[in-house]
Amino acid sequence: MDFSIASLGPCRIDSPFAPLVEARRTTEAYVDEGDRVLFDDTISMVAARGLPIEQLPSFEPGGPRSRIFFEPAKTRVAIVTCGGLCPGLNDVIRGLVLELTEHYGVRRIVGIRNGYQGFIARYGRDVVDLTPDAVAGINEHGGTILGTSRGEQDAGEIVDCLERLGISALFVVGGDGTMRGAINVSAEIADRGLKIAVVGVPKTIDNDIPYINQSFGFQTAFGRAAESIRTAHVEARTVPNGVGLVRLMGRHSGFIACYAALAKNDADFVLIPEVPFTLEGDRGLLAHLRKRVVERGHAVVVVAEGAGQELLETNGTDASGNRRLGDIGVHLRHRISQDFDEAGLELNLKYIDPSYTIRSVPANPYDSVYCLRLAHTAVHAAMAGRTEMVVGRWHGRFVHVPMRLAISKRNQVDPEGDLWTSVLEATGQPPNLR
Amino acid sequence: MDFSIASLGPCRIDSPFAPLVEARRTTEAYVDEGDRVLFDDTISMVAARGLPIEQLPSFEPGGPRSRIFFEPAKTRVAIVTCGGLCPGLNDVIRGLVLELTEHYGVRRIVGIRNGYQGFIARYGRDVVDLTPDAVAGINEHGGTILGTSRGEQDAGEIVDCLERLGISALFVVGGDGTMRGAINVSAEIADRGLKIAVVGVPKTIDNDIPYINQSFGFQTAFGRAAESIRTAHVEARTVPNGVGLVRLMGRHSGFIACYAALAKNDADFVLIPEVPFTLEGDRGLLAHLRKRVVERGHAVVVVAEGAGQELLETNGTDASGNRRLGDIGVHLRHRISQDFDEAGLELNLKYIDPSYTIRSVPANPYDSVYCLRLAHTAVHAAMAGRTEMVVGRWHGRFVHVPMRLAISKRNQVDPEGDLWTSVLEATGQPPNLR
Amino acid sequence: MDFSIASLGPCRIDSPFAPLVEARRTTEAYVDEGDRVLFDDTISMVAARGLPIEQLPSFEPGGPRSRIFFEPAKTRVAIVTCGGLCPGLNDVIRGLVLELTEHYGVRRIVGIRNGYQGFIARYGRDVVDLTPDAVAGINEHGGTILGTSRGEQDAGEIVDCLERLGISALFVVGGDGTMRGAINVSAEIADRGLKIAVVGVPKTIDNDIPYINQSFGFQTAFGRAAESIRTAHVEARTVPNGVGLVRLMGRHSGFIACYAALAKNDADFVLIPEVPFTLEGDRGLLAHLRKRVVERGHAVVVVAEGAGQELLETNGTDASGNRRLGDIGVHLRHRISQDFDEAGLELNLKYIDPSYTIRSVPANPYDSVYCLRLAHTAVHAAMAGRTEMVVGRWHGRFVHVPMRLAISKRNQVDPEGDLWTSVLEATGQPPNLR
Amino acid sequence: MDFSIASLGPCRIDSPFAPLVEARRTTEAYVDEGDRVLFDDTISMVAARGLPIEQLPSFEPGGPRSRIFFEPAKTRVAIVTCGGLCPGLNDVIRGLVLELTEHYGVRRIVGIRNGYQGFIARYGRDVVDLTPDAVAGINEHGGTILGTSRGEQDAGEIVDCLERLGISALFVVGGDGTMRGAINVSAEIADRGLKIAVVGVPKTIDNDIPYINQSFGFQTAFGRAAESIRTAHVEARTVPNGVGLVRLMGRHSGFIACYAALAKNDADFVLIPEVPFTLEGDRGLLAHLRKRVVERGHAVVVVAEGAGQELLETNGTDASGNRRLGDIGVHLRHRISQDFDEAGLELNLKYIDPSYTIRSVPANPYDSVYCLRLAHTAVHAAMAGRTEMVVGRWHGRFVHVPMRLAISKRNQVDPEGDLWTSVLEATGQPPNLR
Repeated sequence: MDFSIASLGPCRIDSPFAPLVEARRTTEAYVDEGDRVLFDDTISMVAARGLPIEQLPSFEPGGPRSRIFFEPAKTRVAIVTCGGLCPGLNDVIRGLVLELTEHYGVRRIVGIRNGYQGFIARYGRDVVDLTPDAVAGINEHGGTILGTSRGEQDAGEIVDCLERLGISALFVVGGDGTMRGAINVSAEIADRGLKIAVVGVPKTIDNDIPYINQSFGFQTAFGRAAESIRTAHVEARTVPNGVGLVRLMGRHSGFIACYAALAKNDADFVLIPEVPFTLEGDRGLLAHLRKRVVERGHAVVVVAEGAGQELLETNGTDASGNRRLGDIGVHLRHRISQDFDEAGLELNLKYIDPSYTIRSVPANPYDSVYCLRLAHTAVHAAMAGRTEMVVGRWHGRFVHVPMRLAISKRNQVDPEGDLWTSVLEATGQPPNLR
Repeated sequence: MDFSIASLGPCRIDSPFAPLVEARRTTEAYVDEGDRVLFDDTISMVAARGLPIEQLPSFEPGGPRSRIFFEPAKTRVAIVTCGGLCPGLNDVIRGLVLELTEHYGVRRIVGIRNGYQGFIARYGRDVVDLTPDAVAGINEHGGTILGTSRGEQDAGEIVDCLERLGISALFVVGGDGTMRGAINVSAEIADRGLKIAVVGVPKTIDNDIPYINQSFGFQTAFGRAAESIRTAHVEARTVPNGVGLVRLMGRHSGFIACYAALAKNDADFVLIPEVPFTLEGDRGLLAHLRKRVVERGHAVVVVAEGAGQELLETNGTDASGNRRLGDIGVHLRHRISQDFDEAGLELNLKYIDPSYTIRSVPANPYDSVYCLRLAHTAVHAAMAGRTEMVVGRWHGRFVHVPMRLAISKRNQVDPEGDLWTSVLEATGQPPNLR
Repeated sequence: MDFSIASLGPCRIDSPFAPLVEARRTTEAYVDEGDRVLFDDTISMVAARGLPIEQLPSFEPGGPRSRIFFEPAKTRVAIVTCGGLCPGLNDVIRGLVLELTEHYGVRRIVGIRNGYQGFIARYGRDVVDLTPDAVAGINEHGGTILGTSRGEQDAGEIVDCLERLGISALFVVGGDGTMRGAINVSAEIADRGLKIAVVGVPKTIDNDIPYINQSFGFQTAFGRAAESIRTAHVEARTVPNGVGLVRLMGRHSGFIACYAALAKNDADFVLIPEVPFTLEGDRGLLAHLRKRVVERGHAVVVVAEGAGQELLETNGTDASGNRRLGDIGVHLRHRISQDFDEAGLELNLKYIDPSYTIRSVPANPYDSVYCLRLAHTAVHAAMAGRTEMVVGRWHGRFVHVPMRLAISKRNQVDPEGDLWTSVLEATGQPPNLR
Repeated sequence: MDFSIASLGPCRIDSPFAPLVEARRTTEAYVDEGDRVLFDDTISMVAARGLPIEQLPSFEPGGPRSRIFFEPAKTRVAIVTCGGLCPGLNDVIRGLVLELTEHYGVRRIVGIRNGYQGFIARYGRDVVDLTPDAVAGINEHGGTILGTSRGEQDAGEIVDCLERLGISALFVVGGDGTMRGAINVSAEIADRGLKIAVVGVPKTIDNDIPYINQSFGFQTAFGRAAESIRTAHVEARTVPNGVGLVRLMGRHSGFIACYAALAKNDADFVLIPEVPFTLEGDRGLLAHLRKRVVERGHAVVVVAEGAGQELLETNGTDASGNRRLGDIGVHLRHRISQDFDEAGLELNLKYIDPSYTIRSVPANPYDSVYCLRLAHTAVHAAMAGRTEMVVGRWHGRFVHVPMRLAISKRNQVDPEGDLWTSVLEATGQPPNLR
């Protein structure tokens, strides 16, 4: 099935639960339930649709509704964080808890420990009571106070647990694997005829979620990654024929590599999954790198972990079901050394892989605000009875995105777009290394 | 004259100069000259226009053009920075210089010293040669290597200087006063029949430029401002009846106050120019503040410098022509002390005014990237012959905005919008302090 | 009475309590009770004493003792923090709690709220249980979790409270006023024949405690202060005739001003309490400042709050009994403006007073380690029955200093010493501004 | 030959050059040439010497002399930086240049490129003119503007180059290998009867230089290393049975590991070269680690690169002549995984090796000040004709240390001293893992 924004038109969020409860506050601006945020941003895109305006692809705007579904005093809520660490997880947890308690007056919120494992009896993990006191100051720290784990768990057992705990709304913070699990949970909930909203806050340090302009933690992450490029640059330029090689995150998308490279402008070559390259030949990376080192005395190469996979032999998947990648960083280190050696050139190569350092830091102020507002949006959505959806930001507006849409493809760097153009301009690398 | 985006329709940038030169590079993605970035972002807004799609309000997209106007080898360029400091000024200068030299091959770029004063002979300021070497690493430092000054200068003398220097393109980095000056310069250029492009990079630490989603340096600024709120919070909670009072920038717009308050969530009251308030009475600030301190033992008040001006008597304007504001921070400090005194309550008030600290820091990684890309956009625009325009970002797209439009009004926090709603939710302050 | 290190000889700590309990651990290195850390550090100083070696002025070394006085299982401990904030307070609290519980096995530790007020019934402040869980992560935050207040309280009431709580050891973290209070408490304890050890951890952001090489939080503080000097420098050099004026802490001692000025080397003049100066005349500050601005276009003046008091009229004392200082910063701002005005020179003066920002930040890694080790030393001293003493570091060794000695005078910058010489060299200011 | 401080007595710096020139300034405090800084710091140490006071082991104090040897106007100076990067190198270079030019009026200072290689003609590296302008702001950046290289070069060729350049004083910044090279250069200078002072600023990120309390860059380095431990802790505690393993610098000395572990107190085990340990058996690391993980759910192990070398097979030396170490980090990772596997325990191990990140950062404010003052001391020494010596700080005093003494042994963590005791107390690890 072609599950895309275009096929959806003005996409609606499943809300099997008719909102009947009047919201407590009356002074604030409620969202107009009939409005939609446009998917397209240029006249050419709109024109190409050939559709009446009201049928244009669009998202439901996020925000507080004048009528909500769940009666706050009777609502129990659960929060779970899954997958790898990402800056801002604690900000999201804290934002959810504060909005639920202080805005809506929800009194019982539980945290599920170590991802989906926390729902499953045999792992023996207790739930955590999440009160405003319990979340005070947690945003100062990296990681997640709830812990995480990778991998799915049985949807039936999860819903058993939700029923046992009397949960009305489940907030799931995680990546695409996690959202796939949440869809299964939603289906099980529907099968059992339960009234439990499942709302996702999409997490991906790689910024590869589609229909969402920038994922939380991304700015913090690339800021930190930029420091590694700086390190590489400092090391490279202090030694004769210094080469700094930095391997950054980015399984399918090179956003971190691109933004980090632009932040300090210390990189000479940026390699991303979206733009294939070759090592050999006159137009390959190695020849260009050698040339740069001979001319300037040093160079910095930034490579996203998912780049150049076609040059490697790999197989298998990890616990989250992600394909195991070959280690392009180690491969490049080896090949660059070999190449300089064959060319009779001295080489002082420094290899830097900052990985965990990037994922475990607290969110920067921007991401803190963004996480807070995503959390507010998620709470409003859940209280209004929306389900099987994630919150996002599209062209600066907070929106509701159907869960299936959010995992239907990946957000990637457009090799024809202005981000990649800026990278090419800033590095001076040739548009094609092949 | 009603100079607004709605009245403009698909707004064009004056380009009296027909681009005839073929751009040097051929591999990259050129901007489609016919396309436009939509001003509206919801279906309701578009529908309300009642216009054919191609007549909808819209901006010209930024980016490299396949045909440019100025022949790089013959082009001389000038850069000037004006007004107060803002994080990212050096990033913009550096981005302009690198893009001009490395992408287009422009060989002569001069920096004008101390704002518009640098054009005027009697100030006796030499110009600075801006080469890639001269701008290496300047983005590590706050401020601007060119210096600034406030206030306008005679447009005729400025154009005399541009002619004398043989300038083809002038990049002006500054606020709305500066852009007003640039419009005069453009007019003088047109009067003399010269072919000099004038392109602005709008600077405002307050984020109050319309038609531009977020101004450069803003994230750095509010991140730093958040530290002051943290300081106030730490001081307030360690003493009996502690009140932290933080005065932040924001003459007309409370964006810094709002975002900084959300970043750490330590504020109990946020006061901004867009939302009037009273001090006295049961529903005034003082009563609410007293109540909060009695209940919790401490409180933090964040006030934008332009807030509550109706409570003060002020007059006069500064060198940039801005109305002098009364000092709301000092006024609040006085009135809060008085009020606690009258109520017989102990008070330990700490007043914090971080002003310069916020303006003089280097850009954070996000703003560095943003400045670089704004600079790239500005260079592409100027080389293609665009003039009397500024570069901006609208809904995530880099765009060209007519200079007159960019100063036609101010961007302000919408008291009915989701940002202010988030602030109310995060602080718990009443929607109306009056 | 001449209470100085010289008059004390090998100074002993009052230990009315004979240590009889065998310490729990046997594997570590115990301090040799008979040894002493030398006060003198040069041969000329030692020779000038004309004393046998064993009578040379010296301190008792800190560290674990093989025999202790208090039986851990029966020991109750109280901790109180007094006076203004200083980076590292939470580190000290945490270090005390962890060492008491994990090393010695002490089970009951209470925190007293808001300084000495917390002992006094009429303020109605409950004590806080301090467990390892309660102090986990507190060192990530500035301030003190116990709160503080200024001013003394009645020693009798304090000891009443200690008796009521069954306290065996009291740790007092505070400045010289606080230590004066602690001496009174000690005297009252002795009068009542109680066995309560009173051990101080001296706190002063100004580094003005004698017989202690560097006070905790000092490095964090001057590091932060250096940022303000940087701000002043950035602002000053971007405007015509820019002068940055930075007022830093330092009532009696200019250490923060000196170190902060050296850290970035952006200052042109450093003014400290230890070195008088004049404003007027050819050799006064104003003439030199004008000259510097004319020559270089900008200048930065750093002034410690206690400098130049002879130029001001002041009176009164604050709640801690400290003499109120005149505001030298505001005075300089006024006089510099006047002076440039009279000389017909343009002036763009930026005045920066970072005060709270410096005191409320978390300790940097060095200070964290230092606080932890000071806390360890304090715990070892108290458990061994030492009382009326403070812990310090002398020439790199942790030592015990009699409380009376620690408040007998102030540590000051030596105008003939190498620190001030370095400042003169780094700023290029004349040795005498008078 | 027994080359130790004890055998030297009051150790003198070779000064074959009698200082005859009157120093320019007269207002400052000159060092008393006859005085000495005591080596011993306790009465027991002094007493044990059984020597008259004037024969006690001691250092010459650093600082300005009233009579100097080199006439500034005729003096040419060279600066070289060698070996691995260390925070503060640029601060030292800048401090040397500013002190030479602004204090003494030396007019010609050259920087030698890429360590000792820069002296050798066949490497073809030009020298760099070092003026105050050339060093402005370099301390904001990590690395060294002069570049470095590893390994010695022929002393004869180096002195040829010094003669050719007309150098009077050579400043060598580097580690023990570098100082060994400098001693050879000094010998060659003496053989040729030249008047060239050779003064060292000892560089070691490991803090392993003897007779110097703390080497420059050390505080910056361990502060950064503490962040890696924090990362490991955050990662470990978010997953079931998480183990964070952090490999830090420290070939022979565990100072960075100890201080970094104390700074955040997140480590459960610290392994250093000075304290051997076993992996196997009931008292070995693996058993203790398993126990800790089972009890708490997670643990952090910090290992200095030189620790546990007895557990590995290694051979060879690097270009600086240092023995190649086996990779204890990788070995531990492997053995811990194996061990948990055999015990049937889940394990989520995160391995972190921050290496370059720590070495390439700019100095923190403390180290900046320290570097500046070391540089001042070095300049005073050289101008006064001291040679074959390094500058250091002993018990808080800047001193001159004979070069041979500075490489006669290594500074190491004392397993019986208070630093290691604090580490044991803070981690709770057993004193003996064997």
